[in-house]
Amino acid sequence: MELYDAMSSLRAVRRLRPDPIPDLVLRRVLTAATWAPTGGNMQPWRIVLVREGVRKQRLEDLYRPHWEAYLPGYAAKTASLSGDALAKSNRAIEAGNYLATHLHQAPAIAVFCFNPQIMTITDSDLTRPSVVGGGSLYPAVQNLLLACRNEGLGCVLTTLLCIEEDTVRELLELPDGWYTCAHVPIGYPVGGGYGAISRRSVDEMVFEDAWGDSLSC
Amino acid sequence: MELYDAMSSLRAVRRLRPDPIPDLVLRRVLTAATWAPTGGNMQPWRIVLVREGVRKQRLEDLYRPHWEAYLPGYAAKTASLSGDALAKSNRAIEAGNYLATHLHQAPAIAVFCFNPQIMTITDSDLTRPSVVGGGSLYPAVQNLLLACRNEGLGCVLTTLLCIEEDTVRELLELPDGWYTCAHVPIGYPVGGGYGAISRRSVDEMVFEDAWGDSLSC
Repeated sequence: MELYDAMSSLRAVRRLRPDPIPDLVLRRVLTAATWAPTGGNMQPWRIVLVREGVRKQRLEDLYRPHWEAYLPGYAAKTASLSGDALAKSNRAIEAGNYLATHLHQAPAIAVFCFNPQIMTITDSDLTRPSVVGGGSLYPAVQNLLLACRNEGLGCVLTTLLCIEEDTVRELLELPDGWYTCAHVPIGYPVGGGYGAISRRSVDEMVFEDAWGDSLSC
Repeated sequence: MELYDAMSSLRAVRRLRPDPIPDLVLRRVLTAATWAPTGGNMQPWRIVLVREGVRKQRLEDLYRPHWEAYLPGYAAKTASLSGDALAKSNRAIEAGNYLATHLHQAPAIAVFCFNPQIMTITDSDLTRPSVVGGGSLYPAVQNLLLACRNEGLGCVLTTLLCIEEDTVRELLELPDGWYTCAHVPIGYPVGGGYGAISRRSVDEMVFEDAWGDSLSC
């Protein structure tokens, strides 16, 4: 696919068919993740690709209560919406419910792991929440998502399972010093999968030279 | 460009020509960033695109001492390398030195800002460094980098200026509650720009079902 076509039609796909993914397709998607840039080219991440049934079911069992706990807050945030926006939000909630009860059916779940000891986290001493560690991790996740789009595979970036990190670390036998940052179920879409996405316009998202000043290009 | 061609040839370009970037090209690159997924589709980031000379020079003046402070550690890490790897590391250092003294010449510097209050950071209560906030930010940065590649523009993801966040916030007039997470200089490459990248193989980066178990696909 052409780059912009892939990016502009990549949306979260939470209804995944259990059909197997051909080995070569899966390998291309995983290889795309390895191409991402990382600070000092350290590549401080690894994927544990979960394909075995018992472990997938365990991940679902850990995920479901956190989805259920997250839901009321999300629903409250979107309750003031109306028309199309409300309908869209309700569809997202239903798809999320589906994922929370069918995660084990996804043919693969890519669990991204990372090691902060080999990362330079330049905002670790600031008083606000640190995010910079993610700069060497989520570009790889995004490459994986885009590659899935390219291959006709559905997927969605989730992070709720980080709350259960201790249990997940044990389940996937992660060594000391390695943690989890993303859990991406992958599979062929139940429905159409991809399509139009709704995002704020570039003029709302980008300022020029100073906050609030309109982009001149 | 085809997606995999863009991804597999995207590398850090630190020597940038001062030549202007056509408005429509810049707009396409910025639009690509807006397409990225974010948690709950909140899009909790903005870009301040710095094109004005005095502000770019100020960013360079803030950046340079932190590059100089970072360099000895990086050089120490790579000192044990030899042959091609050492040569590559030395070239990266020289390109980094170039950037630290020519940042103001880049026609544009995209400063990514974020607001943690509209993000769900699921690893904020864990005892290890938090990274999940980056999950709603760096996919957009990666989209921008890939779009630059697509347009023949060079760029590099930097985070050193986060150390100077208070000063940068004032310089770019960020409102309360908004912080910085990436600074991406953008411009046409002085040299060839893109080309082969060196990354670990997928078999080194991906395990199956449990840490250390080889990928079967």
